[in-house]
Amino acid sequence: MAGLDSVLSCLDLNLDRSVDRLFDLLRIPSISTDPAYASDCRRAADWLQKDLAAIGFDASVRETPGHPMVVAHRKGTDGAPHVLFYGHYDVQPVDPLPLWDNDPFDPRRVTMPDGTERLTGRGTADDKGQLMTFVEACRAFIAETGSLPVTVTIFLEGEEESGSPSLLPFLDANREELSADVALICDTNMWDRETPAISTGLRGLVGEQLTIRAASMDLHSGYFGGAAANPIHVLAKILADLHDAAGRVTLPGFYDGVPELPEEVRASWATLPFSEKEFLGSVGLSVPSGEKGRSVLEQTWSRPTAEVNGIEGGYTGKGFKTVIAAEAHAKVSFRLVFDQDPAKIRESFRAFVQERLPADCTAEFHEHGGSPAIQLPFDSPVLRTAREALSAEWPKPAVMIGMGGSIPVVGEFKRRLGMPSLLIGFGLGDDRIHSPNEKYEMSSFAKGQRSWARVLAALGEKRA
Amino acid sequence: MAGLDSVLSCLDLNLDRSVDRLFDLLRIPSISTDPAYASDCRRAADWLQKDLAAIGFDASVRETPGHPMVVAHRKGTDGAPHVLFYGHYDVQPVDPLPLWDNDPFDPRRVTMPDGTERLTGRGTADDKGQLMTFVEACRAFIAETGSLPVTVTIFLEGEEESGSPSLLPFLDANREELSADVALICDTNMWDRETPAISTGLRGLVGEQLTIRAASMDLHSGYFGGAAANPIHVLAKILADLHDAAGRVTLPGFYDGVPELPEEVRASWATLPFSEKEFLGSVGLSVPSGEKGRSVLEQTWSRPTAEVNGIEGGYTGKGFKTVIAAEAHAKVSFRLVFDQDPAKIRESFRAFVQERLPADCTAEFHEHGGSPAIQLPFDSPVLRTAREALSAEWPKPAVMIGMGGSIPVVGEFKRRLGMPSLLIGFGLGDDRIHSPNEKYEMSSFAKGQRSWARVLAALGEKRA
Repeated sequence: MAGLDSVLSCLDLNLDRSVDRLFDLLRIPSISTDPAYASDCRRAADWLQKDLAAIGFDASVRETPGHPMVVAHRKGTDGAPHVLFYGHYDVQPVDPLPLWDNDPFDPRRVTMPDGTERLTGRGTADDKGQLMTFVEACRAFIAETGSLPVTVTIFLEGEEESGSPSLLPFLDANREELSADVALICDTNMWDRETPAISTGLRGLVGEQLTIRAASMDLHSGYFGGAAANPIHVLAKILADLHDAAGRVTLPGFYDGVPELPEEVRASWATLPFSEKEFLGSVGLSVPSGEKGRSVLEQTWSRPTAEVNGIEGGYTGKGFKTVIAAEAHAKVSFRLVFDQDPAKIRESFRAFVQERLPADCTAEFHEHGGSPAIQLPFDSPVLRTAREALSAEWPKPAVMIGMGGSIPVVGEFKRRLGMPSLLIGFGLGDDRIHSPNEKYEMSSFAKGQRSWARVLAALGEKRA
Repeated sequence: MAGLDSVLSCLDLNLDRSVDRLFDLLRIPSISTDPAYASDCRRAADWLQKDLAAIGFDASVRETPGHPMVVAHRKGTDGAPHVLFYGHYDVQPVDPLPLWDNDPFDPRRVTMPDGTERLTGRGTADDKGQLMTFVEACRAFIAETGSLPVTVTIFLEGEEESGSPSLLPFLDANREELSADVALICDTNMWDRETPAISTGLRGLVGEQLTIRAASMDLHSGYFGGAAANPIHVLAKILADLHDAAGRVTLPGFYDGVPELPEEVRASWATLPFSEKEFLGSVGLSVPSGEKGRSVLEQTWSRPTAEVNGIEGGYTGKGFKTVIAAEAHAKVSFRLVFDQDPAKIRESFRAFVQERLPADCTAEFHEHGGSPAIQLPFDSPVLRTAREALSAEWPKPAVMIGMGGSIPVVGEFKRRLGMPSLLIGFGLGDDRIHSPNEKYEMSSFAKGQRSWARVLAALGEKRA
């Protein structure tokens, strides 16, 4: 482990430079969901390709019908295991912009009153800051030892925040190149700022955009009000019907493939130091509002949801306009768990809407991504190795947790490439990803780099 | 009536010039509800003041806390009755702009395939085109006879489309100056393109803007979904609850003061040539969607409504964002009939919302105007005079009808100035007011001018 010690020192010594590199990447507004930022997504991919090539990776930007992928390879010592690292260089939109304290694409390094530092800006935590922890670990290994302890393929996509439309065809077309012994994914959170976590379960996601149409034009609510169908009313009714009084989703068949948690898992989650009051209190809430009779950990890790993520219709500007809109829109997503089938959920939702359409109203649907949930085996040798390596770096031992978010690539790695994934990330619950004033703790960035160095070293020792 | 004949000829000869004048006024984008157009509202008021002064009115622009009023006086022959003409120079917003065939503030004179002409642009029908029919009638009378057959006060406001916040204080402060024997209001429709109409009933209006708030920031639906309150869900549920399965509004006390129509009125409406199929078909609908068991004329003339005019929350841009919004908004309006009390309806709505708020959610309300319905006496001498004058101008005799829209000033003229109103307008149901591609028929504009000349002449003959 002498090699590891010098790598860790190298990371510590070069921390400022690693922040500079990250800031260069953060300044590129690579918002994948908005076509206006397509050239910025490409700039981010180019930046990463150049950075990886500079440290000796065989790195390339690979075209897709959407935003490009970055793929980079570097062989480790003979007989070493092969890991595929996955991250994404695209970021969420930044609206509402007025709520940001600074330009989201002008990252800052801020010292807090308690002396800790944090990095602020869109993408610091999701996912540019996270993916660079791995790149920096590789850089230090190569600088200090001239090689990597394992064979590494780095695979970075630019459509994670917009449903990953190009991912599956790309995986299928490059199956051999992207296959490895294990995937390492850095897009998740720690348990708390002292306790690293490996996520063993991830919810899936189905996204649907729904448009309800009635009259052929916007109508004056005086002339037509009382007689004309109002698509906002129709939409509100449909969305209100999605949950029953107990907070359960009412789509027929929605809970097919959703078992109750094994008692041992429920018991282990109950021992985790977790305060519902603090978790909800951190965002101004006080009581869990979802499915009744479930803990917050269950609600967010092992229970499926239906959420309206956006709604729009009629006049929404200043003042008032007495109009009956011709159409109304909603973006609806479902978080899936265990064996829920994304295609069946989508179908059930569409049928649910169609059944509720009154005369003269039509519905139009647009698909925005779909992926099943995944559940990793709770123990495996590689998981144990990583858990020990993380525990050596942080004040408290690593824990295994569930996760409410969706990382569709994990399921696809398993299904298409037969490859298990280790989900190790250094984000914190208050990082405000997807929200204004996103940040990433300096401790996450610095100790994240050191954590990956430890994990790579430990995996390298497993060589055949 | 020799004087009237020459006035009518003068109007016919000067039609092109009257269109030019109207177009000058239409080019001013006087959108009252959007503060960005405040200076344009003032320009429209100045334009009208100058035009009225040019034909010999004592005309002034009068300040208010909002957009200014235009008040103009010209005395008629001795002993003549005194009429107050009311119109509004402000217009509705123009969004969605892409649906307009032309710039809404670049008015056009278009010849249709059937040879008829129409004027297109925002405000052609609501209300600049209508108010100018009266101004042109006055102009011709003065040009041909050197005077007006009645004493005329012209009173034009610039906040009709934004709840008329300055109207009541202005009426109270200028009660004496604005009082007349009868008010003439030109902001309504004809029965059809051959049949003029005098409206004897108008629905009132209560406007409310509602904001539901939950978490203190937008949340990631993966991390918090299932546990965090979603204000869009809360809003959708509240709005869905506003109507029962029979289309009735569920607010407690909502139907207080809403009697069934007298049988004679119901019978007279049944004789009006009206096709529900055509009325709804003109806007792409086929069946009345409102209160069950009511005719469309009842639904829109004599029954109250609750309509959501706008809704917004969460991510509404391109693509998808898996966010749980911190807040959601709706603009809701109620059309009132007979003796419904606007203050009580507003109070009932707010209580209805508050009762339905789950834990951690708050509601904020903003008032956007409120006015009771008015019901004019079905027969009076001045109504009969006007009816005869209109019947002389148009192919078919004038009819008396109800009206679904709200013209708050009518109730205030009655309540504050003790003055009855005659609602005579030349709009048509397909004028697309409040919608893209608003238009006004050239026949409405030309024969509207002639109609007012006839009405003024007939009222002048009633002198004491």
